[in-house]
Amino acid sequence: MIRFLLVVTCCSLILVPKPSAAQSEDSLVIRRIADEILRNGTAYENLRFLCKQVGPRLSGSAGAERAVQETARMMREAGADTVMLQPCLVPHWVRGDGEAAYVYGTDGGRRAIRAVALGNSVGTSKKGVRGKVVEVRDFAELDRLGKAGVEGRIVFFNHAMDPTMLQTFRAYGQAGAYRGNGPSMAAKYGAVGVVIRSLASNIDDYPHTGSTRYNDSFPQLPAVAVSTREAERLSADLRAGVIRELWFRTTAEMLPDAPSYNVIGEIRGSEFPDEVITVGGHLDSWDLGEGAHDDGTGCVQSIEVLRVMKALGIRPKRTIRAVMFMNEENGLRGGLAYAEAAKEDGRKHVFALESDAGGFTPRGFGFSGSPAQFQKFMGWRGLFQPYGAGDFANGGGGADIGPLRPLGTALAGFVPDSQRYFDVHHASSDVFEAVSPRELNLGAVVMAGLVYLVSQHGL
Amino acid sequence: MIRFLLVVTCCSLILVPKPSAAQSEDSLVIRRIADEILRNGTAYENLRFLCKQVGPRLSGSAGAERAVQETARMMREAGADTVMLQPCLVPHWVRGDGEAAYVYGTDGGRRAIRAVALGNSVGTSKKGVRGKVVEVRDFAELDRLGKAGVEGRIVFFNHAMDPTMLQTFRAYGQAGAYRGNGPSMAAKYGAVGVVIRSLASNIDDYPHTGSTRYNDSFPQLPAVAVSTREAERLSADLRAGVIRELWFRTTAEMLPDAPSYNVIGEIRGSEFPDEVITVGGHLDSWDLGEGAHDDGTGCVQSIEVLRVMKALGIRPKRTIRAVMFMNEENGLRGGLAYAEAAKEDGRKHVFALESDAGGFTPRGFGFSGSPAQFQKFMGWRGLFQPYGAGDFANGGGGADIGPLRPLGTALAGFVPDSQRYFDVHHASSDVFEAVSPRELNLGAVVMAGLVYLVSQHGL
Repeated sequence: MIRFLLVVTCCSLILVPKPSAAQSEDSLVIRRIADEILRNGTAYENLRFLCKQVGPRLSGSAGAERAVQETARMMREAGADTVMLQPCLVPHWVRGDGEAAYVYGTDGGRRAIRAVALGNSVGTSKKGVRGKVVEVRDFAELDRLGKAGVEGRIVFFNHAMDPTMLQTFRAYGQAGAYRGNGPSMAAKYGAVGVVIRSLASNIDDYPHTGSTRYNDSFPQLPAVAVSTREAERLSADLRAGVIRELWFRTTAEMLPDAPSYNVIGEIRGSEFPDEVITVGGHLDSWDLGEGAHDDGTGCVQSIEVLRVMKALGIRPKRTIRAVMFMNEENGLRGGLAYAEAAKEDGRKHVFALESDAGGFTPRGFGFSGSPAQFQKFMGWRGLFQPYGAGDFANGGGGADIGPLRPLGTALAGFVPDSQRYFDVHHASSDVFEAVSPRELNLGAVVMAGLVYLVSQHGL
Repeated sequence: MIRFLLVVTCCSLILVPKPSAAQSEDSLVIRRIADEILRNGTAYENLRFLCKQVGPRLSGSAGAERAVQETARMMREAGADTVMLQPCLVPHWVRGDGEAAYVYGTDGGRRAIRAVALGNSVGTSKKGVRGKVVEVRDFAELDRLGKAGVEGRIVFFNHAMDPTMLQTFRAYGQAGAYRGNGPSMAAKYGAVGVVIRSLASNIDDYPHTGSTRYNDSFPQLPAVAVSTREAERLSADLRAGVIRELWFRTTAEMLPDAPSYNVIGEIRGSEFPDEVITVGGHLDSWDLGEGAHDDGTGCVQSIEVLRVMKALGIRPKRTIRAVMFMNEENGLRGGLAYAEAAKEDGRKHVFALESDAGGFTPRGFGFSGSPAQFQKFMGWRGLFQPYGAGDFANGGGGADIGPLRPLGTALAGFVPDSQRYFDVHHASSDVFEAVSPRELNLGAVVMAGLVYLVSQHGL
């Protein structure tokens, strides 16, 4: 387009309720925060480092250990008064030498397919598992087949994320049951292995990993994910009756727990140092890809919150902590250790904000607190509408900060646009290049804005 | 992330004003539109074809001609009652054999740089142009240098898009003056050539083209764009005093006007066939890249509006036309021809909607009409909030539909999120892969929703 004036006019006239006089100063501070981050932000370069120099950082891996050291450095560079490592023991699952899988056709031929072991899953024997394939769309279909239809076979859970759900997290939540419980549900009926359709919102060739959870009542089955396109092809070939068997081998195993850390960077509050605000993301990532949107972006945005306060000379009344939580993906040990320490430290943990839904363009925040706190939160909404982040909702938080809620901490989750997240989530396509610098920075702007407001006005 | 429940809750509870009873049925129709497009939409596959099979389609090119035929086919497949080609004569600018450019250092060496001729610009002689480089940030700086500082030199306009403008179209509008008027302003002081910093919101290696406009009072200078990263490097090297001269050669030329067409697909209104609603994008694109976001997405979304009506058996009361406008990029002849014909056809052109700001996640619409029409438009806002498109603003439209305004046609511009648009706009990076299928589809959903409302309720 070349003639943009009409569009420009429209963009600049988004109707926003006039802020009260009391909010005018806050609005100016948030504007300064935005200008500083959009001009001089370091989140994108920090993310580049985390993705390209550190890379994947599954709990217990060398990458995770290096990420601890490097984000501690980034926090010092951002100007944190104190940077500390908070120990926690984490599960140490490894993929091993990788996976191999073949589809054997009724014509005697075989076709290699890409498959990735689900996180926390057991490996197969060296021989792998081989069997006829039975496809089901959901657990009800599995139950109808029962032992007679499942025993000795490989169950293929082909449950697609519902494309009509406008918020992709809802569709993910629904389809997630097959990754989480599918292996044990199939084991219940005597299956020998499980293949799931990746939890992905698009059709492409990347398999997506992610945690599965074994139910102790049943044998632990090896389980792999295939890409959505492969799932469609397998399904079509099964319908056409041209698949004889499927074979796969995985080399995954769960090693003993490993020592690791949350990384905490703190700016001490000038008036109420014992009231603590936490802003964080999780530092661990799956071993495929670079953990860019999940959750490198949440980490570097949280560091940016510290940096912008220091760069602008803002002295927050309450203590602000950026926290890189370890082990969100397959254990949550970091979040649990953080809450445990918070319970003991004699400080009041007033508020925690997590960014773990990707580094996409901001839409708003979800909030969990008392009705009075929620009302205060809603009163700030107009300050965020100019930044496209006016969707303020009741209910929200994040996995890592969830354990703080029983301490009375109010929680919020940063809500970016959700449409692209599950294209890359847990797949080797979750790389630095999938992140837009402006979208990332705008997320940091509204996160810093909300943290600033709580730091000045409490909750 | 694995534990999404808190985030999910937040997403599903976005606060939306309760629609009136009268709006409930509209809301259900829009929901059906959304379900159909999100499940069975063809916009993404049509876009793939337009980008990968047709490719770039600058006015007058073979690609543009093929795009006319192919989108006419797509409209027939979408179920349009009538598909017609509306003739127009278009400027026919060609890049020729491409560009070459070197920076000559004070050390005697030279370095090749990527440069692309600006659209509509003249070519250099075969020898190219060579001269010392003078860098300016803006026209004021150019004026201060005057003839003494500019004559015989190459002027380098290094004006960056302002990163602090939240709506990138505003920053583009401001910086656009250097691409549009820079060559003539430099010619005024006797420059021999012009280099501009690409109008881009990110720092990368892609030069972005786009129209320049010569002022008849001054000689027509050849002009090229360099990438933002190259602009930063040139600037640093000039400050360091290590650049002796710059040379570039372009082979662009303006050929005689060529015959071309707008493509119009129509569904005849069941009650008011002589009241016409137009929904469109522009079919031409710059010759770099594939014209994916600019404006393949607007075209395939408009075709999708027709398709979803037919697929759902909706019989609109008013006539709906999807229009692929030709020559938005360097002449607007299609938009002018369309309005000219509308003036003569004896029908009432009640409303026109354009999508020409990229196929990104929807934010809302800008609207230009009478106060009463604007009020009616604003009354529909709540219907679009669940789709993330509740930013309804006064003022909006699009380049191609602008000429309809004098006929009394109310106009609207679809407003997607603007953060990524100028990363790829007019560059070879504007390719199919830069488009998210869900974002594209959601845009089509809200466009179809608004067209549906006007088709049923008028304006």
